[in-house]
This record gives sequence, C-alpha cells and structure tokens, in this order.
Amino acid sequence: MYRSHSCGELRSSDINTEVTLAGWVQKIRDKGFMIWVDLRDRYGITQLIFDEERTPKDVTEKAKKLGREFVIQVKGNVIERESKNDAIPTGAIEILVKELTVLNEALVPPFTIEDTTDGGEDIRMKYRYLDIRRNPVKNNLLFRHQVGMKVRNYLSQEGFIEVETPYLIKSTPEGARDFVVPSRMNEGQFYALPQSPQTFKQLLMVGGMDKYFQIVKCFRDEDLRADRQPEFTQIDCEMAFVEQEDILSIFEGLTKHLLKEIKGVNITEFPRMTYDEAMKTYGNDKPDIRFGMKFGELNAIAQHKDFKVFNEADLVVAIAVPGGASYTRKEIDKLIDWVKRPQIGAQGMVYVKYNEDGSFKSSVDKFYDQEDLKKWAEKTGAVPGDLICVLSGEANKVRSQLSALRMELAERLQLRNPEEFAPLWVVDFPLLEWDEETERYHAMHHPFTSPKPDDIPLLDTNPGKVRANAYDLVLNGNEIGGGSIRIHDKETQALMFDHLGFTPEEAKAQFGFLMDAFQYGAPPHGGIAFGFDRLVSILGGQETIRDFIAFPKNNSGRDVMIDAPANVDSEQLKELNIKLDL
Amino acid sequence: MYRSHSCGELRSSDINTEVTLAGWVQKIRDKGFMIWVDLRDRYGITQLIFDEERTPKDVTEKAKKLGREFVIQVKGNVIERESKNDAIPTGAIEILVKELTVLNEALVPPFTIEDTTDGGEDIRMKYRYLDIRRNPVKNNLLFRHQVGMKVRNYLSQEGFIEVETPYLIKSTPEGARDFVVPSRMNEGQFYALPQSPQTFKQLLMVGGMDKYFQIVKCFRDEDLRADRQPEFTQIDCEMAFVEQEDILSIFEGLTKHLLKEIKGVNITEFPRMTYDEAMKTYGNDKPDIRFGMKFGELNAIAQHKDFKVFNEADLVVAIAVPGGASYTRKEIDKLIDWVKRPQIGAQGMVYVKYNEDGSFKSSVDKFYDQEDLKKWAEKTGAVPGDLICVLSGEANKVRSQLSALRMELAERLQLRNPEEFAPLWVVDFPLLEWDEETERYHAMHHPFTSPKPDDIPLLDTNPGKVRANAYDLVLNGNEIGGGSIRIHDKETQALMFDHLGFTPEEAKAQFGFLMDAFQYGAPPHGGIAFGFDRLVSILGGQETIRDFIAFPKNNSGRDVMIDAPANVDSEQLKELNIKLDL
Repeated sequence: MYRSHSCGELRSSDINTEVTLAGWVQKIRDKGFMIWVDLRDRYGITQLIFDEERTPKDVTEKAKKLGREFVIQVKGNVIERESKNDAIPTGAIEILVKELTVLNEALVPPFTIEDTTDGGEDIRMKYRYLDIRRNPVKNNLLFRHQVGMKVRNYLSQEGFIEVETPYLIKSTPEGARDFVVPSRMNEGQFYALPQSPQTFKQLLMVGGMDKYFQIVKCFRDEDLRADRQPEFTQIDCEMAFVEQEDILSIFEGLTKHLLKEIKGVNITEFPRMTYDEAMKTYGNDKPDIRFGMKFGELNAIAQHKDFKVFNEADLVVAIAVPGGASYTRKEIDKLIDWVKRPQIGAQGMVYVKYNEDGSFKSSVDKFYDQEDLKKWAEKTGAVPGDLICVLSGEANKVRSQLSALRMELAERLQLRNPEEFAPLWVVDFPLLEWDEETERYHAMHHPFTSPKPDDIPLLDTNPGKVRANAYDLVLNGNEIGGGSIRIHDKETQALMFDHLGFTPEEAKAQFGFLMDAFQYGAPPHGGIAFGFDRLVSILGGQETIRDFIAFPKNNSGRDVMIDAPANVDSEQLKELNIKLDL
Repeated sequence: MYRSHSCGELRSSDINTEVTLAGWVQKIRDKGFMIWVDLRDRYGITQLIFDEERTPKDVTEKAKKLGREFVIQVKGNVIERESKNDAIPTGAIEILVKELTVLNEALVPPFTIEDTTDGGEDIRMKYRYLDIRRNPVKNNLLFRHQVGMKVRNYLSQEGFIEVETPYLIKSTPEGARDFVVPSRMNEGQFYALPQSPQTFKQLLMVGGMDKYFQIVKCFRDEDLRADRQPEFTQIDCEMAFVEQEDILSIFEGLTKHLLKEIKGVNITEFPRMTYDEAMKTYGNDKPDIRFGMKFGELNAIAQHKDFKVFNEADLVVAIAVPGGASYTRKEIDKLIDWVKRPQIGAQGMVYVKYNEDGSFKSSVDKFYDQEDLKKWAEKTGAVPGDLICVLSGEANKVRSQLSALRMELAERLQLRNPEEFAPLWVVDFPLLEWDEETERYHAMHHPFTSPKPDDIPLLDTNPGKVRANAYDLVLNGNEIGGGSIRIHDKETQALMFDHLGFTPEEAKAQFGFLMDAFQYGAPPHGGIAFGFDRLVSILGGQETIRDFIAFPKNNSGRDVMIDAPANVDSEQLKELNIKLDL
C-alpha cells in the first residue's frame, strides 16, 4: 500500500494524523529554509511542507532535488496551514514531511501540466498520457464515465438488456466505406468492422430480446472532417412491439434523466417538429432552439414589386437579428461579405434596419416602402432595434445559407449558452434523398427504415416525397441521436432494396439473412442510436469531441502517440493471403 | 403501443381487466369448440383462450389459421383459469380473446423453439435469431447483462473509471497473431485490432487515472480450439500506487460480491497458492479445489526398490480416488487405457486398492509389501475403500497426465458441482517460459510483467527460475482472471525486452511510446483482466462459453448466420492499396 490517503481527501479534522501520500509533484516553492511542494493525484492537490527546523535534514536535501512531475511518496503529519487556500478542498491543511521516497523521476514535460497549457494540439496528442494529467482532459474522461454509468443504469432499470454484438462482420457496399479485416483462416475473404450494429439489433428483436441497448464502438472509413473520428461510440437501442411514439417517449425520459442527474436541469418542454417545419423555420434539420431568429418567408410580400433579384428567386427568406439596427455600415458590409464567402455561397444580402423610432431603413428602399418593410418585420418577428437580413435564391440553398448566418450571429451575440439545454425531436424525415453524383436515390437514414404506410404509393410516382417513420433527437443545434421504425416484413424490405437500386440477387447476397429472419416471425420494431462522444461533449458544455476521447486520432486517422497505422512485415501479409498494391 | 402488459406479468389480481398482449405463438391446442394458444415473449408465457361461445366467430376462424412462431396481438379479458398451471407465474389466469391481429406470419421454424430443442449446433447457429428465442440461450444473455451491470457498478463505486481505449491500434509481433486492418488514408499501412488494451491502460496509469476498468472486446487471430472465439470480452482493470496485495484484495472483493449477489453464495475462504505449489499438488496452474485428490509424491518411498519403471522415473506421483477400491478389473483396465490415450500420453498406470479391511492389493505387489503401500496411502491421503493411481515419468509430463486423470475422475464421480464455487489465487508465476520451437524464452504473462526484485539477478544465470509479480484468479478449475504488477521504469523494461530477444531498435520501434512514457513520471502500477465470457459461463454453471455469446463464430472463425467473412470487390481492395495473393 503506497498511501493511506489520496491527495484530495485530508481536511482540518485530520490534523495530527500520520499519513502517507503518493502522487506527482505539481509545483515546488523553495524558500531556502522552507520548501513547499504541491502533490497531485486524480483526486486533488495536497500541500507538503519541508521545514528546516522540523524536517530531517536529509529529507529536505532530497526535496531540493525534486522536479516537476516526479512521482513521490511521503510520510508526515497533517498540520494546520498558516495561510489557508479556500480554492481547494484540502486548503486548510498541509503535510509536514518526515520521509520522502522518489518512486520515479521525470524528464521535464514537453508542455505544462496546468489547466491552461502551453502545449499545442500536436504535442498534446503525441504525449496524450501527460495531457490526461491535466484537469480539463481528466475531468472530461471522468465525466464521460459518469454519463455512461447513468445511461446504463437508466436503460437497465427500464428493462433494456445490453447485448454485445460482433465486431467482425460482413462488408456491405451500401452506406459509408467499411474498414475490412483480412481473414487468415478463410483465404481471400474479409470481415468488416461494423458501422453500427444495425442488422444485429434487428435480429435480436426477431429473437425476442424485446429491449436491447449497447454502448458500442462503431467504425467508418471516411475522409475525416474536423471532429470526426474513424472509430466512435454509440448508445445503440432497439425495441420490439413499438410505434414511433413509444420510442420518443422512452428516450425523452432518458434525455430528461441525464439532464436532471448530470446538469441539475429540469426539462419541461420537449418540442417536436417535422423535418419540413424545421427546414422552413430554421433552414436546418437540427435547429438550435435556444434562441429565436426564426425564418420569415417573404415571397408573398416581397415579390411582384420591381426588385428583379427577388422576383426571380425561388425563395425570399429573412431573419431578424436582435439589436442589429445599431450595426454600422461597415459591420453590415462585413456580414454581407461573410455570407458571400464560398463556404456559404450567398449572392448577396438585403438588409432592413428597424429603427428604435419605428421607421425602416433598407438597402432596397428604391423598391419597397415603409408599409412593405413593416410586413417583412411582422413575418420575421422583428421589433424596433433589430436588423432584418434577407437572402434569396434556390430554396434549399438559400435556407442553408440563412441557417449558417443565423448560427453565426447567435454565436456572436452569445445566444448559445452552453449551460442551457433545449432538446427537440425532428420527425417525419424523408425516406430517400437524391444523390447528384450517382444520380439515384439513397436511403436518408438507412435501407431498413420504414416508409409511412400512406406514402408507399409515392415510391413509384414521387420517391423524394415519401416520408419515413424516422426521427432525430436534437440538442442545442446538434444531432445527438437518430432512429426509425424499421421495416419488419420481407416484401417491404425487398421493395425498398429495389428502389435503392439493388438487384434481387445483390439484396439477397448482402442482406439475405435479415430478409430470411423476417419470414420467421419478426415483430414490429424500431430504435435509435445516440452519438455518445457528441452527447457527452454537449452535456459537458463543449462542442468538440476530441477531448472527451482518451486516445483520439488526428485528421489523417493516425494515432500519433503510438504511431499507428504502421507497416507490417511481409510474412504477416503472406499469412493473410494479401500483398501491397501501391 | 402494441400491448398493455407483457406475457409474464398477469396474475389473479388482474382478473376482469381488459388487456392487450403481443408476442409469439408458442403452442396451439385446437379442441374444435375451444382453442388454447400459449403466447410467448421475453417475459413469459400467457395462455389465450378462443371459445366457441364467448369469442367472435371470425376471431376463432383466424385463430385456427395460426402457426407456431406467428407474431400476434390480442385483446381480451383476463379470466380465471380452470386448471391452474403452477409451473408458470401466469398460470392462474388466461385471456379470453376478443380481437386477434396477425402482426407477422412465420414459416415453420427449422428446429423447435423449446428448452430442449431438436436443432443441432450448426442449424442453431445459422438461425441464431430463432435460437435466442429459446429460454436457455435467452436467459444466458439476460444473465450476462446482469453480471456486466454488477461488475460495472461495483468497480465504479470502488472509484474505478471506465475509459474506452482505441480499437484501431498498432500490430506487434510479440504474443498471439493480430488481426490487421488496412488503412486507406495511410497507404500501405495497417492498424491492428487490440489483443488487449494492455499498453493503453498502462498509459492511463502514467496519465494519473489511478483506477481504470473497461469491459471491452479483444481480438486474437489464432487457430481456434473448441470454446475459443476470435473476438472475446475482457473485464480489464489497472490501478496505480499498488502492490500485489492491493490488487488481490480489491478483486477478491469483486469476486465475493458477484458470488453473493448473483449466486447467493458467501465465500469465506479465498486461498492463495504459489504456482510451484499448485503444480506439485494438482499438476496444474488452475486447480479445481472443490474436491481433494491431491497429489502425493512417492519418489522417496517408491524408488530404490526393484521396480525399474519407478527407479528410472524423474517423478513418481499418485492420487487417491474416493471409493475406487470397488472398481472391477475391467474398470481399472479402462482407466489405464484412458491415461494411455495419445491426448494424455501416460506410459501406463500402477494402481493400489486400499481395501475396506485395511489391506492393500496392487499391480506391483511383486515389488512392494503392505508396509510400503501403507506409506503410499499416507502420502496420498487414501483411506480404506480408495484406489491409489500412480503415474511416473518426466516430472512436467507426468504431473500434467495425473492432473488430467484427476479431473476426469472428478467429473465421473460428480465432484464438480456447478453450484459450488471455490475461488483461488495462484501467485508467483514464472516470469519466462522456454519455448521448444523457437528455442528461446517467452514472457509467460506478457513483456510488461515485473520480475520479483530479488530474482532479477537470476535473469542472467537461470532465467526459467525468475518469479514474477503475477497472479491468476482461478474459479472451479478455470482461469477466470490473470494479471501482474507491471514494470514502471525504462531500464527494467529495456532489460526485459533484451531477455526476450528484442534488439534495442525493435523494442523502440514497437514499444518506444511506452518506454518514453515511463520517463515522464510513471507510478508503480498493476492490474488484472478477467475473461468475461468465461466468468459469465462459470457463474451460470456451465463450462462452454458459446451460449453466453449472442452471435458466436464457429471453429473456422465464421459467422454462419450472416456468412462472414466474405469476398469484397476488387474496387474496395484497390482503394486500400492491397490485392489478393492466393
């Protein structure tokens, strides 16, 4: 036993106790006749004191040679601290050291082990084991554990069973790219790592498991954008004999429970919105509803005047920016430049200042009078003092541009409070989406999502209009979960594969086992999956997932700490019956 | 909502309630004027009754067309059952059906969905989703979930943090064969799937996480023996600032907790035994101590007589078989044949009957008198009525042969009671073991295990004699966990790699990140990993793991249900910069 107490637990009531502590040297202050050392472990910091008069001389000598991040063990007495430190729980006491053992020395760390470090992203990743010693990263990992435990205990109490599904499965060309694993024992064949346990959880429903969940790693070999990882964690859930309403209600319960238990937040409103409504109102299928700036569509009131730009537009749509009437001309020009950047792609922006005195001043005063502009204000909910920003063009594009502007302005106006939580269900997603590149329809969610029964005839006439029993859980503008009611009969599943461009042979080769299973008594079922990395980071008040993952990979999919991936020797490849083809 | 109640919850107190149930048709008894259907779901079975007089005619007609495993929904009244069934919790009631909806039809299942099925292993695996409907498999999966929750909650309460370590890591030639994953983004390079999170958990200790655990999938590309899986689950644990005793004590606590909570068994004795003692006493490093038959070494008393076989033997060793004196000559001959089978490999077996009257009758009466044989009885603890079985030969081989005989006899004598639990620590394992094939020493546990400090000098003179701070947790003759105190300084780790035949360059290329980490303040640390599949199966009173895994693979590493591994198309391989080399 290297210690009697942790570095976070001693208090005034422990004064005069003999203790043994072990940990890392956080800080040393050497005043000559007296040395203070901050000793750190996972649980906190305790101040050690080496005192010319009361500490054996050889011990003090040893203390003088300590360096940052040395691992030491000390024995001593808990004494009252002269100048107390209210900032830490152990701040009332210190340890008068009698014995000191250096358990391990340490080189000078390549960056400071402090809450705010001087280390850049790259060096922090290379020495991730040092980065984890820092409170911000350490606390994120502790937080992640707590959230995981709460999720498991809640679902378990609700009758869900965690079932481990396999990691070595079969590659399917549908969806994202798979990571594959050559099989040595089955020459020339490959496993794939799961993009999700989708088909297995459906088979568990066919198998009568009724309520399933799993916190599970999933894999996608995609080109990595910022804040995407090739391996990520999902809370994966499925239920039998349910309709959409049952799923929404159970997972509203989970979300409320987590927010209450972890953040102390009571959620009273849990709104729902159709996909169409979300796109119309926020230009986005994962709207942040912590703040307003809802879209106002102006076609009816802004077209048929002489302003050609609007008249020719598919959609004229606007938002009211709170307090924006006070923006200077320069500020507004900058905003216009911002929406015209290639990443956003707007052609331009019309603006209207709704002055405090109730008058309007716009960039299109030539075409619209005060009465016209008052109607725009009504449509966008603008009040005196606001700035109305208007974009126009092709409906989908302009919605997406205005959505980006809305988010950017909310960020600037600090309307996105990380300690406020506004969950939302977005429902009735389209079943299919048109892919420009391949010129065919893809499953928006996945090929197992059930179309709304009333919309099935549209599959032949207007596939893009078919709505699915699919839903997303949105929290503060982030999609944290998504799911659907599944197809549970072979005929509908075959119809779906057909519409996705599978030949019957392809469908059978890839998903025959699932369609077979549907013939042996499949119950109606549906489910949801949460992005656990994302959920944890949003609950933690942050929007980047990387520091909630112990050992993340960089944007090239590399683990720079262990230097993976790496070359493997040719013997190993030979055994696997593959060779490089560079 | 497809149901108001599950099929397992209705009781007498629910009589006269209107209910809606959904589930699978387990059994149909059609008496013409009356039809009974057993409706099944995860929670139980409820009897439905369709009655000529009280059920609408069209409903009864529909019921007549039901088949086994159809998925149905019924509405009706809970009524008292005429002939109660005490065997099931719902046996006091039945549902008088008023409405029947067939939610999904079912083909006749390829095997019976009963506790004892007519389906063989292969067909059960192909239709695993049907197999999971059977109570024995379903209950195993529910049991596994319960054990997992208990483990997580216990460790979490003890201050352990579950940290997810990466699945895409780096291949290392040491140890078993890795599964590898070609990287598309890093041409010609490969990830490996982890055989265990060993190095990552050690880095978490360097990172100050203090107490880590994870229930995690691990992967080994080995030729599969019965009851081995290419992917398996581990309860992986690591602690900082601990000595061996601390680890043993914490995980004794976990084991006792599980046995108490899950099996209602109070463990009072938790013995410890050195590896040497286990080998001498049981011929085995994972002895089943639920029963005796301890080894008695007879060299001192059986050699130096005229029996050449014994005189020339390295070791003469025996066990006493309870009640074996009554075996017939034929039975004993069969036993001798059993030990001479090539799988066991004994040259022969000497036996001594210790008759009820106190006299001895042996197969070597020519060489040994009653006084001699009495000493043999003393050494083996034989009492009148027992049979003493003696094997001789090279010490390691003969111990292993006698151990096999001991286990076989215990099985036959039903001394291995699956509801009795006898845990045991085996400690002081050798650090290294000699590998005949490669003619060098291998790490018995893994290269990160610390040698006992006193034994380090032996590394140069007698490597096989160096003991490690390594321990196994044995339960009922199965190794369920194993671990060690780790090396935590660069010098010892380098020394160890050197003794394992690594050049300094190889050590740096493969484990440089770990040795670097040891230079930045690594605390003393150690840990343990449990085979979760095995633990669950033993707690469940069974010795095969396959039916505690939802979707296991067969002995060729195939998932016969989804038919994986499979071919992937050449485009996919091209993207990965590999090609087949058959």
